[in-house]
Amino acid sequence: MLDSNHRKPLAGVFPLTPFAIKEDQSADYDGLAHNIEFLAKSGVHGTVMFGCMGEFYAPTFDEYKKCVDVAVEASAGRIAIVVGATYQNTAEVVRRVRYCDQAGADGVMIAAPYVINPNAEVVKEHFTAINSAIEDGLQIMAYNYPPLARGFNMSPDFWDWMMTLEHVKAVKESNGDVWHRDQITAKIADKINVFPGGEGWMFSDFLMGAKGVVSLFGIAVPKTVMKFYNALLEKDLATALPLAHKFTQLSSYITAENEVAALKATAEIGGNKAGRPRSPYKPLDPETRGVFKRILSELAEM
Amino acid sequence: MLDSNHRKPLAGVFPLTPFAIKEDQSADYDGLAHNIEFLAKSGVHGTVMFGCMGEFYAPTFDEYKKCVDVAVEASAGRIAIVVGATYQNTAEVVRRVRYCDQAGADGVMIAAPYVINPNAEVVKEHFTAINSAIEDGLQIMAYNYPPLARGFNMSPDFWDWMMTLEHVKAVKESNGDVWHRDQITAKIADKINVFPGGEGWMFSDFLMGAKGVVSLFGIAVPKTVMKFYNALLEKDLATALPLAHKFTQLSSYITAENEVAALKATAEIGGNKAGRPRSPYKPLDPETRGVFKRILSELAEM
Amino acid sequence: MLDSNHRKPLAGVFPLTPFAIKEDQSADYDGLAHNIEFLAKSGVHGTVMFGCMGEFYAPTFDEYKKCVDVAVEASAGRIAIVVGATYQNTAEVVRRVRYCDQAGADGVMIAAPYVINPNAEVVKEHFTAINSAIEDGLQIMAYNYPPLARGFNMSPDFWDWMMTLEHVKAVKESNGDVWHRDQITAKIADKINVFPGGEGWMFSDFLMGAKGVVSLFGIAVPKTVMKFYNALLEKDLATALPLAHKFTQLSSYITAENEVAALKATAEIGGNKAGRPRSPYKPLDPETRGVFKRILSELAEM
Amino acid sequence: MLDSNHRKPLAGVFPLTPFAIKEDQSADYDGLAHNIEFLAKSGVHGTVMFGCMGEFYAPTFDEYKKCVDVAVEASAGRIAIVVGATYQNTAEVVRRVRYCDQAGADGVMIAAPYVINPNAEVVKEHFTAINSAIEDGLQIMAYNYPPLARGFNMSPDFWDWMMTLEHVKAVKESNGDVWHRDQITAKIADKINVFPGGEGWMFSDFLMGAKGVVSLFGIAVPKTVMKFYNALLEKDLATALPLAHKFTQLSSYITAENEVAALKATAEIGGNKAGRPRSPYKPLDPETRGVFKRILSELAEM
Repeated sequence: MLDSNHRKPLAGVFPLTPFAIKEDQSADYDGLAHNIEFLAKSGVHGTVMFGCMGEFYAPTFDEYKKCVDVAVEASAGRIAIVVGATYQNTAEVVRRVRYCDQAGADGVMIAAPYVINPNAEVVKEHFTAINSAIEDGLQIMAYNYPPLARGFNMSPDFWDWMMTLEHVKAVKESNGDVWHRDQITAKIADKINVFPGGEGWMFSDFLMGAKGVVSLFGIAVPKTVMKFYNALLEKDLATALPLAHKFTQLSSYITAENEVAALKATAEIGGNKAGRPRSPYKPLDPETRGVFKRILSELAEM
Repeated sequence: MLDSNHRKPLAGVFPLTPFAIKEDQSADYDGLAHNIEFLAKSGVHGTVMFGCMGEFYAPTFDEYKKCVDVAVEASAGRIAIVVGATYQNTAEVVRRVRYCDQAGADGVMIAAPYVINPNAEVVKEHFTAINSAIEDGLQIMAYNYPPLARGFNMSPDFWDWMMTLEHVKAVKESNGDVWHRDQITAKIADKINVFPGGEGWMFSDFLMGAKGVVSLFGIAVPKTVMKFYNALLEKDLATALPLAHKFTQLSSYITAENEVAALKATAEIGGNKAGRPRSPYKPLDPETRGVFKRILSELAEM
Repeated sequence: MLDSNHRKPLAGVFPLTPFAIKEDQSADYDGLAHNIEFLAKSGVHGTVMFGCMGEFYAPTFDEYKKCVDVAVEASAGRIAIVVGATYQNTAEVVRRVRYCDQAGADGVMIAAPYVINPNAEVVKEHFTAINSAIEDGLQIMAYNYPPLARGFNMSPDFWDWMMTLEHVKAVKESNGDVWHRDQITAKIADKINVFPGGEGWMFSDFLMGAKGVVSLFGIAVPKTVMKFYNALLEKDLATALPLAHKFTQLSSYITAENEVAALKATAEIGGNKAGRPRSPYKPLDPETRGVFKRILSELAEM
Repeated sequence: MLDSNHRKPLAGVFPLTPFAIKEDQSADYDGLAHNIEFLAKSGVHGTVMFGCMGEFYAPTFDEYKKCVDVAVEASAGRIAIVVGATYQNTAEVVRRVRYCDQAGADGVMIAAPYVINPNAEVVKEHFTAINSAIEDGLQIMAYNYPPLARGFNMSPDFWDWMMTLEHVKAVKESNGDVWHRDQITAKIADKINVFPGGEGWMFSDFLMGAKGVVSLFGIAVPKTVMKFYNALLEKDLATALPLAHKFTQLSSYITAENEVAALKATAEIGGNKAGRPRSPYKPLDPETRGVFKRILSELAEM
């Protein structure tokens, strides 16, 4: 097994990239390449594709593979490519992880299984198999999102085990409980890079020790996200606070129903490629899209 | 489009069939054929494979197709074959439905999408596409299970729309709220066959107008389930009541965590083929398996 | 301690009586006496006042005492008077129980404490004190309503303990899970009279062994509730089924928000005295009141 | 109506005071006076008695009145006395508010009604009556705690109305959603002092604009809470961060079941008077009490 030095580190600002599709709902690979180019030029550190808001459940495996190839090529080593490999059974996750490992992605983001309610033993079997499947230094970003995983939470105790897996290098924390995130950060931040799952949690989490963010709005306003990130690294609260308020305000319009549509609207408002969510999900309603347009425009000026 | 007369009706006792796998977790097609033969000889009216407890999320598409073929062939027209085609995006459901339509299955059981929270408009787009994909009379059994579908419930109002779809012929009701099930039955039972999602709900639902049951325990004790079913059809409460109590008692050991393992244990206790749940899920713990063995044995004597 | 023979048994149809108030929100004792007279003449077996829908949390202790006295006097031994004595601390429940015991009420209905989340040990301490406070044969109707009690459920195991309390003679079961109610009935119905918490659950529960009902609609249509009750006792399903459907339909308009207002509207539609819910709660909205009026009128004809 | 200048402002560190009781569960007024003396000497700005953890549901009205008198007298104007006046009906809240207004308390803390699910119209009727009952400048600290209030949340939109009430001067925010608290603070902090409901939320909330804290641990370690508070006011993150971590760690041992017992244990560990929770609730289990003792001792050294 090679060391992982040829993978870009999982740290910094990682905007979500949507699953771009055309009007006929076929995959828009040119659109994806365009989006990666946009991000690479914007100064961010990486991107996460095929998260929840990135429709990980939507592509076929053939589409999935081609998207990975397109993104790795478009990045050309400029930004880290993290690919969501969450799926509803272990075998399919392993298949996706193996592909990413060979295709030159920098990381995979993986949540617990989410159809049948999992418990700790189930999630351990899942991640053990995943970790063992990696042969070439691919990095795992665990994804803790209890509402997806039928309530399963990667608790501080669970991390005693999780830290024994050699390829786990980061965690995206989307548990909305700030006490939980604080405890996780206090426990693991020396070894595992903690990424809050959006700008709305950056303010406190970065002051507590987070090392990166899976950004919801970087696909539209990457420079503003970078400004927020840098202000927090420098503990420049005067700069950070108004940005925190504005990002939180925008985040509050995202719901469990519209989250995919919200990312796609964000990308398009930012001049990037997205299209509607794949069937059966619906585009963002016009009124909320108007709110996004207005607040993103205000953020672009900040 | 042909009429659907060459499909067996969706009515009566339809035990769940597990997704049988071998020790190496590969699909056990001989086991599946064995299980279908067992059911066909037992006097039940049909079977449902690839429900939630039947691990619809576990097989690859190739395995799925072969399982459909094996089941249709093993049944040889003796019992109705209903195949779960629930999936996390419309395109994959349509692909599975088309296969079942051509392969000679009698029905498909389909729930609402379950990764991103759906609303009525989303579910309508989903089922519109599914209904349109059927060319040869395949029958749809809608599957109403709010805990799977992130809270989405097929309400009485929703059925005003759902009944306009020509291929929807039945519904598996797994909403635990007896008032809901009563209202649905009162509204649609003349046109749509209502199947409670287990023996635990049969007693009241059949007296209210249900026409079938998706049986949890028929893969072990089909004759007892048939006895319960016939007693209810004849309103023979003296026979039905002790059976109702005993089935409810056993049902209460099934949880959101162990439901797959419970079906597999049930099948094996009944002398059929199952194996463990596919990774990452775990077999039934020995203590609960012991309870199943004891109560199923009592049921076999009733 | 006297035996409890001088108390009327807790069995049969027990409509809820609302907490009648005047336009200035003062207690309407004449209205209460009128309501009791109505019920006593209607042929029902008892009544429950100060349930959740009967605003147990609203009266002062002075009002409470006078209401008990008025009801006992108005009944004059014709129907059993059960008084809600649920409260947010043990001492106040004991105070109310002692009053009811001396005032000649037949029973008290008591739920678990509901401000701070209780567990089994807490509920046991509560009911131990309550049981010990009874000196003159007052009967306890336990009230199992997990949504009120912050999720606490009187499970079958809990009843192993609960049945050791000499004054516990009945339980009002408002756990909506039919499996739970079936298991409770199967376990305790020989010793403890099970009352489903409304007409919507009567059909299956009476066939399973319930002995009474805390009726939501008897304050308007007592003769129809009695007809339903008698049909179920005689297992006359042809009579019972249409009534079950209609009562369930009406029950489905009752929500956690409007339940008090719904009982008050029901009472007034039935020609009885109620008034609005005490501040801060609101009367039933006119549209829903119209639905109640229509369905109650249909029920009165059945 | 007088102006409210003779009331001490609602700002700064306000530790919860427990409802001290003796071994026979009678109210311990000397213990209360002792606790107030302890706090007044410790340098904090105020105290809140009869919060949820302070057993607002436990005392009789006579005990309530005497506790208010004792606290006001013991404070002697040194610290602000805020008295919980939450109750399950408007009339009783008004009675308690009137007493506090005349008795010289500085404020009352009041949550939405919590037995029957309230909506915005219900809560408005409640607070309108409360606000109107104040004649002598008593200040209202609204208490937003959705888990108590059956899910009702004082949203940003609700505050458009709430800010029209002249006596509302502060809010205790115990909605665990940091986005909500940020939005509330951004909207109202110019006019209404926002108090996070515990040390665990202070770090981000103070940086965002909170003006006070309802402290869970000040009854044991007031100097450490003051140090944390002052560090946050001065944006001295190096001092604040380790304190934030430690307070969050301790907070995470508090549950919906043990919250009353946790405050009482905290007070006693700090050398103050508390006793067990009033019946039916139980003292803190010895193991958790040991954890509290250890962490509070560490906090005292920080």
